[in-house]
Amino acid sequence: LTTRLPAVGTTVFTRMSQLAAQAGAVNLGQGFPDFGCERSLLTAVNDAMQADFNQYPMMSGAPVLRQAIVAKIAALYGHHYHVDSEITVTAGATQALTTAIFCCVHPGDEVIVIEPVYDSYVPAITLAGGVPVAVEMEVGAAGYTVPWAKVAAAVNSRTRLIIINTPHNPTSTVLRAADLQALADIVRGTDVLILSDEVYEHMVYDGHQHESVSRYPELAARAFVVSSFGKTYHVTGWKIGYVAAPAALMAEFRKVHQYNVFSVNTPMQHGIASYMADPAPYLELPGFYQRKRDLFRDGLKNSRFELLPADGTYFQCVRYDKISSQTEAEFAEWLTTDIKVAAIPVSAFYQQGKESGIVRFCFAKRDETLALALERLGKV
Amino acid sequence: LTTRLPAVGTTVFTRMSQLAAQAGAVNLGQGFPDFGCERSLLTAVNDAMQADFNQYPMMSGAPVLRQAIVAKIAALYGHHYHVDSEITVTAGATQALTTAIFCCVHPGDEVIVIEPVYDSYVPAITLAGGVPVAVEMEVGAAGYTVPWAKVAAAVNSRTRLIIINTPHNPTSTVLRAADLQALADIVRGTDVLILSDEVYEHMVYDGHQHESVSRYPELAARAFVVSSFGKTYHVTGWKIGYVAAPAALMAEFRKVHQYNVFSVNTPMQHGIASYMADPAPYLELPGFYQRKRDLFRDGLKNSRFELLPADGTYFQCVRYDKISSQTEAEFAEWLTTDIKVAAIPVSAFYQQGKESGIVRFCFAKRDETLALALERLGKV
Ligand SMILES: CSCCC(=O)C(=O)O
Ligand SMILES: CSCCC(=O)C(=O)O
Repeated sequence: LTTRLPAVGTTVFTRMSQLAAQAGAVNLGQGFPDFGCERSLLTAVNDAMQADFNQYPMMSGAPVLRQAIVAKIAALYGHHYHVDSEITVTAGATQALTTAIFCCVHPGDEVIVIEPVYDSYVPAITLAGGVPVAVEMEVGAAGYTVPWAKVAAAVNSRTRLIIINTPHNPTSTVLRAADLQALADIVRGTDVLILSDEVYEHMVYDGHQHESVSRYPELAARAFVVSSFGKTYHVTGWKIGYVAAPAALMAEFRKVHQYNVFSVNTPMQHGIASYMADPAPYLELPGFYQRKRDLFRDGLKNSRFELLPADGTYFQCVRYDKISSQTEAEFAEWLTTDIKVAAIPVSAFYQQGKESGIVRFCFAKRDETLALALERLGKV
Repeated sequence: LTTRLPAVGTTVFTRMSQLAAQAGAVNLGQGFPDFGCERSLLTAVNDAMQADFNQYPMMSGAPVLRQAIVAKIAALYGHHYHVDSEITVTAGATQALTTAIFCCVHPGDEVIVIEPVYDSYVPAITLAGGVPVAVEMEVGAAGYTVPWAKVAAAVNSRTRLIIINTPHNPTSTVLRAADLQALADIVRGTDVLILSDEVYEHMVYDGHQHESVSRYPELAARAFVVSSFGKTYHVTGWKIGYVAAPAALMAEFRKVHQYNVFSVNTPMQHGIASYMADPAPYLELPGFYQRKRDLFRDGLKNSRFELLPADGTYFQCVRYDKISSQTEAEFAEWLTTDIKVAAIPVSAFYQQGKESGIVRFCFAKRDETLALALERLGKV
C-alpha cells in the first residue's frame, strides 16, 4: 500500500496528550477544557433522544439548527444566510474544512495558507491534489501579524483558495478590520475563494471584536465560513460544526459532504439548536476566558517565560529562549515529562518545522488546574 | 467554481424522502426505522454525557468502544483484531467507506464495484481520482448473484481495490462462503485490497450466516471491514460506525481520518460501548426483521408485484413489469405521489441508470406502517 499522505504522522495533539497522560502531567497541550459544560445543554440533547430524534436528519442539517445558526450570524455579524441553501451542519469543524477544500481544490490548484497553520489544512490540500503555498506570519513585540503584501505576491492564476483563521490558533492573533480589507483588496477581480476558520469566534478579549468574514459582503460572497460548537459550549468531543457559504458554493460543498459523512448526529443537532435560543453562553464567553487568560498571564509574569500577546482563542504562546536552547519539540517534551506541564511546540504548525523558540499553552482549564500548572512552571 | 463531482446531484434518498413528505406518503424509500430504539441505549448515552465524557476522545475512538467491537467480531466471526491498532471509530459507515477509499486509491487507480452499487462509493472513488469499474450482478429467479468470473476478468495491474457489500443494498443478496472463496481466489497473489461494507451484518434471514470478510483470514489480511451502529440499534441518525483492518492498512486509514473528522462524538461512543455488553439486541435482530420481512412479503403475495428473494438487509425488491412500463424513477414517483407509498428506483444504484423494472421497499417499519403501505400497494 503506497501512502497518499507520506508526510503525515500522528497529530501533535494526540502525541502530546499521550505523553501528558504517561507522565502524569497537567495537560495544557491539546486544546480542550477540563471542566464540564452546562447541564441544560445535556438535558436538551437527552430530551431530543427521548423524543426519538434518532433517525437520519436532513443531509444539510436539522432545520431547527440551521435556523439557529442563521439567526446567530445575523445578530452578531449582520449577514443573512439562507437557511435552506447556505448552511450545512458538519461532523466538527475539521470535517467542514476538509470538505470545503475537497469541493473546490482540483489537482494542481494552489492554496495559500498562513503559517503557523493549523495542522489539518495542509494534509487536506495534499489529499485533494492541491499545492499548499505558505506565507509566514511575522512576529514582533506586538505579536504575530499577517504580511498581506506577501499574500498578494503569492496569488497567481493557479491560486484557487486562501485559508485564513481568526482568532488564530496557535498564535492567538485576532484579525482587525484592516486585515479583512487587505484580503478583500487581494481577491477583488480574481476568482480566488476564501475559507475562513472561525472556531474561536466567541473568544476575543480586551474589547476587540471578532471580524468574521461574514461581516464583509464582498468577502462573504466568495467564502466558506466555518465554526463549531465544541469550543463555544465546552464540548470538544461532540464534533458538531457548520459551514456557511453562498448558495453556489454550498451546492458544491454538499456534493462532497453527502458522500463523505452524509449527515450529522441528529439528537446532538436538536439539543444544540434548543440550547442556542439563549445567547448568554456565547455572549459571556469572552469575559469567562479573559479572566482565565489574565490569571494564567499573571502567574507567568515573574517567570523566565516571555508572554506573547493573546487577543483571542484559549491559547497563550510563550518564548522560552531565556530558559533553554532546545528545539520546541524537545522543550515541550521536557516540560511535559520533567516539569509535568504539557505544551504544544509551535514548530508543529510549520510545514518545514520552523523553530521560533515558542510553545503554546491552553488555558481552558479549571482555576485549580491553572494554579497547579503555574506553580510548576514557576520553578522553571 | 468548477465542480469536482460533475455527475452528482442530490442523493436519491434525500429526493424520495422529500417527495414522500410532500405527498404525505408512507416512506418505504430511504432506509431507516420509524420506531424508537431501546430506552436503555439512550440512558447509556445520557449517563456518559452526565459523567462528563464530552471532550475529545482518542482519534481512533474511545478504547471502551474499540474493545467492545473487537470482542463482538471475535465472538461472531472468530477474528481477533488488535484493539489499539486495528479498529477506528468513524462518523458513520459512509465516512469509513470514503476515508478507506481515500487512503488507498491514487489518481488513475481502478476500483471494482458491483452493480447495483450503493450510491456513495462511486463519487468517493471519483473524488479520490480513481476510476470506478463496474461489474453487474446477474438477476434471475434465484435473485441477484455476483458473476465472479467477470470480476476476475476486470482485475488488471491498475486495480487497487474491490468493494463488496454483504448483505447487499439494494438487492438483499447475502454472499455465501463460495462467494468469499471466489473473491479470495481472485485476489490471491495480487496486491488488490478489499473494502467490505457490512452495515447489515446482523440482518440475515432463513438461517443463513453472515459471511463477514473477517471470517476469512486470507481476505481479512487485505481488507477494510466497515460496519455501523445506526442500522443495528435503530438509530440511523447517530452516525457512529467503524472500520476494522490490519495494522498496516489502519495506519494509512488513520492518516486520512485524523484530517477528515479527527475523532467521533464521545458520549455516543461511551453509551454504545456500555450497551454492547449485552449481545441480545443484535442476536435478536434476524428474528425481529425476518418477521417484518415475512409480513411484508405475505402482504404482497396476491398483488401484481413480483417479489425477489430477500435473504438479508431490511429491503425488499419487487418487479413491477406486470403493472407498468414506466422507468423505475417514474414508477417510484408515481407510487409516492399517487399510491402514497414511497420506494427507491434500483436504477439509482447503476452508474448508467440501467432499467430492470425493479424498485426497492424498506420494511424497517412498525407493523401498522407496513399494514397501511400494503393496503395501498394492494390496490395497484
Ligand atoms: C482536534 S485536536 C486539537 C485541538 C485543537 O484545536 C488544538 O489543540 O489546537
Ligand atoms: C444515508 S441515507 C440512505 C440510507 C440507506 O442506506 C438506504 O436507504 O439505502
